Amino acid sequence: MRILYHLPLSPYSRKVRLALGEKRIPFDLRSERIWERREAYLAMNPACTVPVLTEDNGLAIADSAAICEYLDEAYPEVTLIGRTLAERAEVRRLACWFDGKFSTEVTRLLVYERHLKSLMGRGNPDAAAIRAGYQNLKPHMEYLGWLAESRAWLAGPNLSLADLAAAAQLSVLDYIGDVDWSVNEAAREWYARVKSRPAFRPLLTDRVSGLTPPPHYADLDF
Amino acid sequence: MRILYHLPLSPYSRKVRLALGEKRIPFDLRSERIWERREAYLAMNPACTVPVLTEDNGLAIADSAAICEYLDEAYPEVTLIGRTLAERAEVRRLACWFDGKFSTEVTRLLVYERHLKSLMGRGNPDAAAIRAGYQNLKPHMEYLGWLAESRAWLAGPNLSLADLAAAAQLSVLDYIGDVDWSVNEAAREWYARVKSRPAFRPLLTDRVSGLTPPPHYADLDF
Repeated sequence: MRILYHLPLSPYSRKVRLALGEKRIPFDLRSERIWERREAYLAMNPACTVPVLTEDNGLAIADSAAICEYLDEAYPEVTLIGRTLAERAEVRRLACWFDGKFSTEVTRLLVYERHLKSLMGRGNPDAAAIRAGYQNLKPHMEYLGWLAESRAWLAGPNLSLADLAAAAQLSVLDYIGDVDWSVNEAAREWYARVKSRPAFRPLLTDRVSGLTPPPHYADLDF
Repeated sequence: MRILYHLPLSPYSRKVRLALGEKRIPFDLRSERIWERREAYLAMNPACTVPVLTEDNGLAIADSAAICEYLDEAYPEVTLIGRTLAERAEVRRLACWFDGKFSTEVTRLLVYERHLKSLMGRGNPDAAAIRAGYQNLKPHMEYLGWLAESRAWLAGPNLSLADLAAAAQLSVLDYIGDVDWSVNEAAREWYARVKSRPAFRPLLTDRVSGLTPPPHYADLDF
Protein backbone atom coordinates (compact mmCIF):
# COMPACT_ATOMS: atom_id res chain seq x y z
CA MET A 1 0.00 0.00 0.00
CA ARG A 2 1.07 3.58 -0.66
CA ILE A 3 2.49 5.08 2.55
CA LEU A 4 2.85 8.68 3.63
CA TYR A 5 5.38 9.17 6.41
CA HIS A 6 4.29 12.25 8.33
CA LEU A 7 3.96 14.16 11.58
CA PRO A 8 0.56 15.53 12.61
CA LEU A 9 1.72 19.15 13.09
CA SER A 10 3.95 19.31 10.00
CA PRO A 11 2.27 21.72 7.55
CA TYR A 12 4.10 20.05 4.64
CA SER A 13 2.72 16.64 5.61
CA ARG A 14 -0.73 18.19 5.88
CA LYS A 15 -0.43 19.75 2.42
CA VAL A 16 0.35 16.34 0.89
CA ARG A 17 -2.48 14.65 2.86
CA LEU A 18 -4.86 17.26 1.43
CA ALA A 19 -3.50 16.73 -2.10
CA LEU A 20 -3.90 12.95 -1.83
CA GLY A 21 -7.41 13.44 -0.42
CA GLU A 22 -8.50 15.86 -3.16
CA LYS A 23 -7.22 13.42 -5.77
CA ARG A 24 -8.95 10.51 -3.96
CA ILE A 25 -5.72 8.53 -3.89
CA PRO A 26 -5.80 5.98 -1.05
CA PHE A 27 -2.81 5.85 1.31
CA ASP A 28 -1.69 4.65 4.71
CA LEU A 29 -0.43 7.24 7.14
CA ARG A 30 2.62 6.50 9.30
CA SER A 31 4.10 8.71 11.99
CA GLU A 32 7.86 9.11 11.54
CA ARG A 33 9.86 10.14 14.61
CA ILE A 34 12.40 12.02 12.52
CA TRP A 35 14.49 12.96 15.57
CA GLU A 36 15.40 9.26 15.92
CA ARG A 37 17.03 9.41 12.46
CA ARG A 38 16.00 5.88 11.47
CA GLU A 39 18.48 4.49 8.95
CA ALA A 40 15.94 3.15 6.46
CA TYR A 41 14.23 6.54 6.52
CA LEU A 42 17.48 8.45 5.97
CA ALA A 43 18.10 6.28 2.92
CA MET A 44 14.81 7.54 1.46
CA ASN A 45 15.32 11.12 2.57
CA PRO A 46 18.79 12.24 3.71
CA ALA A 47 17.27 15.57 4.78
CA CYS A 48 15.30 13.53 7.35
CA THR A 49 12.19 15.68 7.08
CA VAL A 50 8.55 14.69 6.73
CA PRO A 51 6.73 13.93 4.51
CA VAL A 52 8.01 11.08 2.36
CA LEU A 53 5.68 9.17 0.04
CA THR A 54 6.40 5.57 -0.97
CA GLU A 55 4.63 3.80 -3.82
CA ASP A 56 4.04 0.07 -4.19
CA ASN A 57 6.60 -0.08 -7.02
CA GLY A 58 9.30 0.99 -4.56
CA LEU A 59 9.52 4.64 -5.59
CA ALA A 60 10.17 6.90 -2.58
CA ILE A 61 9.62 10.62 -3.02
CA ALA A 62 10.98 13.17 -0.58
CA ASP A 63 10.16 16.86 -0.25
CA SER A 64 6.54 17.98 -0.20
CA ALA A 65 6.87 20.16 -3.31
CA ALA A 66 8.41 17.24 -5.25
CA ILE A 67 5.62 14.96 -3.98
CA CYS A 68 2.88 17.35 -5.11
CA GLU A 69 4.44 17.75 -8.57
CA TYR A 70 4.74 13.96 -8.76
CA LEU A 71 1.09 13.44 -7.79
CA ASP A 72 -0.10 15.86 -10.47
CA GLU A 73 1.98 14.06 -13.11
CA ALA A 74 1.22 10.49 -12.03
CA TYR A 75 -2.49 11.04 -11.27
CA PRO A 76 -3.58 13.85 -13.59
CA GLU A 77 -7.36 13.21 -13.51
CA VAL A 78 -7.84 15.87 -10.81
CA THR A 79 -5.23 18.59 -11.39
CA LEU A 80 -4.16 20.73 -8.47
CA ILE A 81 -1.60 22.82 -10.37
CA GLY A 82 -3.87 24.16 -13.11
CA ARG A 83 -4.16 23.78 -16.88
CA THR A 84 -2.59 26.76 -18.66
CA LEU A 85 0.99 27.96 -18.23
CA ALA A 86 -0.28 31.18 -16.61
CA GLU A 87 -2.50 29.30 -14.14
CA ARG A 88 0.34 26.94 -13.26
CA ALA A 89 2.74 29.85 -12.69
CA GLU A 90 0.30 31.50 -10.30
CA VAL A 91 -0.47 28.28 -8.40
CA ARG A 92 3.22 27.57 -7.93
CA ARG A 93 4.05 31.15 -6.94
CA LEU A 94 1.47 31.02 -4.17
CA ALA A 95 2.31 27.47 -3.06
CA CYS A 96 5.94 28.65 -2.69
CA TRP A 97 4.71 31.76 -0.88
CA PHE A 98 2.98 29.71 1.82
CA ASP A 99 5.54 26.88 1.94
CA GLY A 100 8.40 29.36 2.16
CA LYS A 101 7.65 32.97 3.10
CA PHE A 102 4.60 32.37 5.29
CA SER A 103 6.23 29.41 7.01
CA THR A 104 9.48 31.30 7.74
CA GLU A 105 7.78 34.50 8.85
CA VAL A 106 4.94 32.99 10.87
CA THR A 107 4.52 29.24 11.37
CA ARG A 108 8.09 28.38 12.31
CA LEU A 109 8.37 31.24 14.78
CA LEU A 110 5.10 30.47 16.54
CA VAL A 111 5.06 26.67 16.42
CA TYR A 112 8.75 26.28 17.24
CA GLU A 113 9.00 28.92 19.94
CA ARG A 114 5.65 28.33 21.59
CA HIS A 115 5.59 24.52 21.49
CA LEU A 116 8.35 22.48 19.90
CA LYS A 117 11.15 24.24 21.80
CA SER A 118 9.93 23.15 25.23
CA LEU A 119 8.90 19.69 23.95
CA MET A 120 12.45 19.29 22.62
CA GLY A 121 13.97 20.59 25.85
CA ARG A 122 15.69 23.49 24.14
CA GLY A 123 14.94 26.15 26.72
CA ASN A 124 12.44 28.94 27.12
CA PRO A 125 10.42 30.51 24.31
CA ASP A 126 11.98 33.61 22.75
CA ALA A 127 9.45 36.38 23.37
CA ALA A 128 10.81 38.55 20.53
CA ALA A 129 10.41 35.72 18.00
CA ILE A 130 6.85 35.09 19.14
CA ARG A 131 6.03 38.79 18.87
CA ALA A 132 7.52 38.85 15.36
CA GLY A 133 5.42 35.81 14.39
CA TYR A 134 2.18 37.50 15.49
CA GLN A 135 3.21 40.77 13.82
CA ASN A 136 3.97 39.00 10.55
CA LEU A 137 0.70 37.09 10.64
CA LYS A 138 -1.32 40.32 10.22
CA PRO A 139 -0.19 41.33 6.68
CA HIS A 140 -0.33 37.67 5.65
CA MET A 141 -3.99 37.47 6.75
CA GLU A 142 -4.71 40.64 4.79
CA TYR A 143 -3.07 39.26 1.66
CA LEU A 144 -4.94 35.98 2.08
CA GLY A 145 -8.21 37.89 2.50
CA TRP A 146 -7.46 40.00 -0.57
CA LEU A 147 -6.78 36.90 -2.69
CA ALA A 148 -9.92 35.20 -1.35
CA GLU A 149 -12.00 38.27 -2.19
CA SER A 150 -10.58 38.79 -5.68
CA ARG A 151 -10.84 35.18 -6.86
CA ALA A 152 -13.00 32.09 -6.35
CA TRP A 153 -9.99 30.28 -4.85
CA LEU A 154 -6.57 31.68 -3.91
CA ALA A 155 -4.85 31.19 -7.28
CA GLY A 156 -7.86 31.55 -9.58
CA PRO A 157 -11.17 29.95 -10.50
CA ASN A 158 -10.30 26.47 -9.18
CA LEU A 159 -9.18 24.95 -5.92
CA SER A 160 -5.43 24.33 -6.24
CA LEU A 161 -2.22 23.49 -4.46
CA ALA A 162 -2.09 27.16 -3.41
CA ASP A 163 -5.20 26.66 -1.26
CA LEU A 164 -3.83 23.42 0.18
CA ALA A 165 -0.44 24.96 1.01
CA ALA A 166 -2.11 27.93 2.72
CA ALA A 167 -4.67 25.81 4.58
CA ALA A 168 -1.94 23.42 5.75
CA GLN A 169 0.04 26.25 7.37
CA LEU A 170 -3.03 27.88 8.87
CA SER A 171 -4.47 24.62 10.19
CA VAL A 172 -1.30 24.05 12.25
CA LEU A 173 -1.50 27.58 13.65
CA ASP A 174 -5.19 27.05 14.31
CA TYR A 175 -4.44 23.84 16.20
CA ILE A 176 -2.24 25.77 18.62
CA GLY A 177 -4.87 28.50 18.88
CA ASP A 178 -2.87 31.21 17.15
CA VAL A 179 -5.31 32.39 14.47
CA ASP A 180 -7.81 35.12 15.24
CA TRP A 181 -10.31 34.52 12.45
CA SER A 182 -12.32 37.63 13.32
CA VAL A 183 -9.66 39.94 11.83
CA ASN A 184 -10.46 39.12 8.21
CA GLU A 185 -13.88 37.93 7.13
CA ALA A 186 -12.83 36.94 3.57
CA ALA A 187 -9.95 34.82 4.92
CA ARG A 188 -12.29 33.19 7.45
CA GLU A 189 -14.89 32.43 4.79
CA TRP A 190 -12.22 30.91 2.51
CA TYR A 191 -10.87 28.75 5.35
CA ALA A 192 -14.40 27.55 6.20
CA ARG A 193 -14.77 26.42 2.58
CA VAL A 194 -11.47 24.51 2.59
CA LYS A 195 -12.17 23.06 6.03
CA SER A 196 -15.51 21.62 4.95
CA ARG A 197 -14.00 19.57 2.12
CA PRO A 198 -13.92 15.80 2.71
CA ALA A 199 -10.10 15.79 2.22
CA PHE A 200 -9.76 18.07 5.25
CA ARG A 201 -11.71 15.87 7.68
CA PRO A 202 -8.80 13.62 8.78
CA LEU A 203 -6.76 16.70 9.77
CA LEU A 204 -9.50 17.81 12.12
CA THR A 205 -9.29 14.58 14.13
CA ASP A 206 -5.48 14.82 14.57
CA ARG A 207 -4.42 15.02 18.19
CA VAL A 208 -0.93 15.53 19.60
CA SER A 209 -0.30 14.37 23.15
CA GLY A 210 0.14 17.27 25.54
CA LEU A 211 -1.37 19.76 23.08
CA THR A 212 -5.14 20.17 23.02
CA PRO A 213 -6.51 22.30 20.19
CA PRO A 214 -9.07 25.03 20.95
CA PRO A 215 -12.76 24.01 20.69
CA HIS A 216 -13.24 25.79 17.34
CA TYR A 217 -10.39 23.77 15.71
CA ALA A 218 -12.62 20.94 14.46
CA ASP A 219 -15.74 23.09 14.18
CA LEU A 220 -16.81 23.72 10.57
CA ASP A 221 -18.87 26.71 11.69
CA PHE A 222 -16.25 28.66 13.66
CA MET B 1 12.07 40.75 -25.41
CA ARG B 2 11.97 38.25 -22.56
CA ILE B 3 13.37 39.89 -19.39
CA LEU B 4 14.87 38.35 -16.29
CA TYR B 5 14.90 40.69 -13.31
CA HIS B 6 17.79 39.63 -11.13
CA LEU B 7 20.62 40.49 -8.76
CA PRO B 8 24.14 39.23 -9.50
CA LEU B 9 24.70 37.52 -6.14
CA SER B 10 21.23 35.99 -5.86
CA PRO B 11 21.66 32.21 -6.21
CA TYR B 12 18.04 31.88 -7.35
CA SER B 13 18.60 34.39 -10.16
CA ARG B 14 21.75 32.48 -11.13
CA LYS B 15 19.86 29.18 -11.22
CA VAL B 16 17.32 30.64 -13.67
CA ARG B 17 20.07 32.24 -15.79
CA LEU B 18 21.71 28.81 -16.04
CA ALA B 19 18.39 27.17 -16.94
CA LEU B 20 17.71 29.75 -19.68
CA GLY B 21 21.27 29.31 -20.94
CA GLU B 22 21.10 25.51 -21.03
CA LYS B 23 17.83 25.72 -22.93
CA ARG B 24 19.31 28.36 -25.27
CA ILE B 25 16.41 30.72 -24.61
CA PRO B 26 17.45 34.33 -25.30
CA PHE B 27 16.69 36.92 -22.62
CA ASP B 28 17.62 40.39 -21.41
CA LEU B 29 18.98 40.71 -17.91
CA ARG B 30 17.86 43.61 -15.70
CA SER B 31 19.11 44.41 -12.23
CA GLU B 32 16.23 44.98 -9.83
CA ARG B 33 16.98 47.02 -6.70
CA ILE B 34 14.43 45.10 -4.66
CA TRP B 35 15.07 47.21 -1.54
CA GLU B 36 13.50 50.17 -3.36
CA ARG B 37 10.23 48.18 -3.60
CA ARG B 38 9.28 49.55 -7.03
CA GLU B 39 5.52 49.50 -7.43
CA ALA B 40 5.43 47.91 -10.89
CA TYR B 41 7.74 45.18 -9.60
CA LEU B 42 5.62 44.53 -6.51
CA ALA B 43 2.63 44.08 -8.81
CA MET B 44 4.51 41.25 -10.56
CA ASN B 45 5.91 39.79 -7.34
CA PRO B 46 4.41 40.87 -4.02
CA ALA B 47 7.19 38.93 -2.24
CA CYS B 48 9.60 41.46 -3.85
CA THR B 49 12.33 38.90 -4.41
CA VAL B 50 14.46 38.20 -7.46
CA PRO B 51 14.17 36.64 -9.96
CA VAL B 52 11.06 37.46 -11.96
CA LEU B 53 10.75 36.43 -15.62
CA THR B 54 8.52 38.34 -18.03
CA GLU B 55 7.49 37.03 -21.43
CA ASP B 56 6.56 39.07 -24.49
CA ASN B 57 2.93 38.01 -24.13
CA GLY B 58 2.79 39.82 -20.76
CA LEU B 59 3.12 36.75 -18.55
CA ALA B 60 5.19 37.50 -15.43
CA ILE B 61 6.44 34.56 -13.39
CA ALA B 62 7.73 34.97 -9.85
CA ASP B 63 9.65 32.49 -7.70
CA SER B 64 12.66 30.68 -9.16
CA ALA B 65 11.15 27.21 -8.67
CA ALA B 66 7.96 28.28 -10.48
CA ILE B 67 10.07 29.83 -13.27
CA CYS B 68 12.09 26.63 -13.75
CA GLU B 69 8.94 24.47 -13.86
CA TYR B 70 7.45 26.95 -16.35
CA LEU B 71 10.55 26.85 -18.57
CA ASP B 72 10.49 23.05 -18.70
CA GLU B 73 6.81 23.08 -19.68
CA ALA B 74 6.95 25.95 -22.16
CA TYR B 75 10.29 24.97 -23.79
CA PRO B 76 10.49 21.19 -23.44
CA GLU B 77 13.10 20.53 -26.16
CA VAL B 78 15.90 20.46 -23.58
CA THR B 79 14.48 19.05 -20.35
CA LEU B 80 16.16 19.96 -17.09
CA ILE B 81 13.75 18.04 -14.83
CA GLY B 82 14.10 14.60 -16.38
CA ARG B 83 11.89 12.20 -18.29
CA THR B 84 10.56 9.46 -15.98
CA LEU B 85 8.59 10.03 -12.80
CA ALA B 86 11.48 8.63 -10.74
CA GLU B 87 14.06 10.90 -12.42
CA ARG B 88 11.82 13.92 -11.94
CA ALA B 89 11.31 13.10 -8.25
CA GLU B 90 15.07 12.91 -7.69
CA VAL B 91 15.81 16.11 -9.62
CA ARG B 92 13.20 18.03 -7.65
CA ARG B 93 14.29 16.57 -4.30
CA LEU B 94 17.84 17.78 -4.91
CA ALA B 95 16.83 21.13 -6.38
CA CYS B 96 14.78 21.71 -3.21
CA TRP B 97 17.74 20.52 -1.11
CA PHE B 98 20.04 23.20 -2.53
CA ASP B 99 17.39 25.93 -2.84
CA GLY B 100 16.21 25.29 0.70
CA LYS B 101 18.41 23.33 3.07
CA PHE B 102 21.80 24.31 1.64
CA SER B 103 20.79 27.94 1.30
CA THR B 104 19.44 28.17 4.86
CA GLU B 105 22.32 26.29 6.44
CA VAL B 106 25.18 27.82 4.46
CA THR B 107 24.65 30.52 1.82
CA ARG B 108 22.37 32.81 3.80
CA LEU B 109 24.57 32.69 6.88
CA LEU B 110 27.80 33.41 5.03
CA VAL B 111 26.59 35.84 2.37
CA TYR B 112 24.30 37.78 4.68
CA GLU B 113 26.59 37.95 7.71
CA ARG B 114 29.85 38.46 5.87
CA HIS B 115 28.69 40.90 3.20
CA LEU B 116 25.07 42.00 2.89
CA LYS B 117 24.75 42.98 6.56
CA SER B 118 27.41 45.68 6.39
CA LEU B 119 26.32 46.78 2.90
CA MET B 120 22.80 47.22 4.30
CA GLY B 121 24.07 49.05 7.38
CA ARG B 122 22.66 46.47 9.77
CA GLY B 123 25.61 46.24 12.13
CA ASN B 124 28.51 43.90 12.65
CA PRO B 125 28.72 40.32 11.38
CA ASP B 126 27.56 37.67 13.87
CA ALA B 127 30.63 35.49 14.41
CA ALA B 128 28.55 32.52 15.64
CA ALA B 129 26.42 32.56 12.47
CA ILE B 130 29.54 32.67 10.28
CA ARG B 131 31.08 29.77 12.22
CA ALA B 132 27.84 27.79 11.79
CA GLY B 133 27.85 28.50 8.04
CA TYR B 134 31.40 27.15 7.64
CA GLN B 135 30.62 24.14 9.85
CA ASN B 136 27.50 23.31 7.84
CA LEU B 137 29.36 23.64 4.54
CA LYS B 138 31.54 20.61 5.36
CA PRO B 139 28.87 17.86 5.37
CA HIS B 140 27.21 19.52 2.37
CA MET B 141 30.48 19.31 0.39
CA GLU B 142 30.77 15.64 1.37
CA TYR B 143 27.22 14.93 0.22
CA LEU B 144 27.84 16.81 -3.02
CA GLY B 145 31.05 14.84 -3.58
CA TRP B 146 29.26 11.58 -2.85
CA LEU B 147 26.53 12.39 -5.38
CA ALA B 148 29.11 13.47 -7.96
CA GLU B 149 31.04 10.24 -7.47
CA SER B 150 28.01 7.94 -7.60
CA ARG B 151 26.38 9.45 -10.68
CA ALA B 152 27.33 11.19 -13.93
CA TRP B 153 25.52 14.33 -12.73
CA LEU B 154 24.04 15.08 -9.31
CA ALA B 155 20.57 13.63 -9.90
CA GLY B 156 21.44 10.90 -12.40
CA PRO B 157 22.80 10.33 -15.90
CA ASN B 158 21.92 13.80 -17.23
CA LEU B 159 22.65 17.38 -16.30
CA SER B 160 19.53 18.69 -14.54
CA LEU B 161 18.06 21.45 -12.45
CA ALA B 162 19.72 19.77 -9.45
CA ASP B 163 23.16 20.64 -10.86
CA LEU B 164 22.06 24.19 -11.67
CA ALA B 165 20.58 24.75 -8.21
CA ALA B 166 23.74 23.45 -6.54
CA ALA B 167 26.10 25.36 -8.84
CA ALA B 168 24.13 28.57 -8.33
CA GLN B 169 24.54 28.40 -4.54
CA LEU B 170 28.19 27.41 -4.74
CA SER B 171 29.06 30.04 -7.33
CA VAL B 172 27.86 32.78 -4.98
CA LEU B 173 29.93 31.35 -2.13
CA ASP B 174 32.86 31.03 -4.52
CA TYR B 175 32.50 34.69 -5.52
CA ILE B 176 32.98 35.72 -1.89
CA GLY B 177 35.89 33.27 -1.56
CA ASP B 178 34.20 30.91 0.87
CA VAL B 179 34.68 27.57 -0.87
CA ASP B 180 37.79 25.52 -0.24
CA TRP B 181 37.70 23.25 -3.28
CA SER B 182 40.63 21.18 -2.06
CA VAL B 183 38.48 19.45 0.58
CA ASN B 184 36.61 17.27 -1.88
CA GLU B 185 38.04 16.26 -5.23
CA ALA B 186 34.79 14.81 -6.64
CA ALA B 187 32.91 18.01 -5.80
CA ARG B 188 35.65 20.11 -7.39
CA GLU B 189 35.66 18.00 -10.53
CA TRP B 190 31.86 18.26 -10.81
CA TYR B 191 31.98 22.06 -10.35
CA ALA B 192 34.69 22.35 -13.01
CA ARG B 193 32.41 20.52 -15.44
CA VAL B 194 29.42 22.79 -14.70
CA LYS B 195 31.62 25.88 -14.78
CA SER B 196 32.93 25.10 -18.24
CA ARG B 197 29.47 24.97 -19.81
CA PRO B 198 28.64 27.91 -22.11
CA ALA B 199 25.57 28.74 -19.98
CA PHE B 200 27.88 29.42 -17.03
CA ARG B 201 30.12 31.93 -18.79
CA PRO B 202 28.00 35.06 -18.11
CA LEU B 203 28.06 34.31 -14.35
CA LEU B 204 31.85 34.36 -14.36
CA THR B 205 31.93 37.94 -15.64
CA ASP B 206 29.52 39.23 -12.96
CA ARG B 207 31.04 41.89 -10.76
CA VAL B 208 29.53 43.58 -7.71
CA SER B 209 30.91 46.97 -6.72
CA GLY B 210 32.94 46.80 -3.53
CA LEU B 211 33.28 43.02 -3.72
CA THR B 212 36.10 41.58 -5.78
CA PRO B 213 36.01 37.81 -6.29
CA PRO B 214 39.16 35.73 -5.69
CA PRO B 215 41.37 35.12 -8.77
CA HIS B 216 40.17 31.50 -9.16
CA TYR B 217 36.50 32.59 -9.42
CA ALA B 218 36.49 32.94 -13.20
CA ASP B 219 39.23 30.38 -13.79
CA LEU B 220 37.99 27.17 -15.44
CA ASP B 221 41.06 25.34 -14.22
CA PHE B 222 40.98 26.15 -10.48
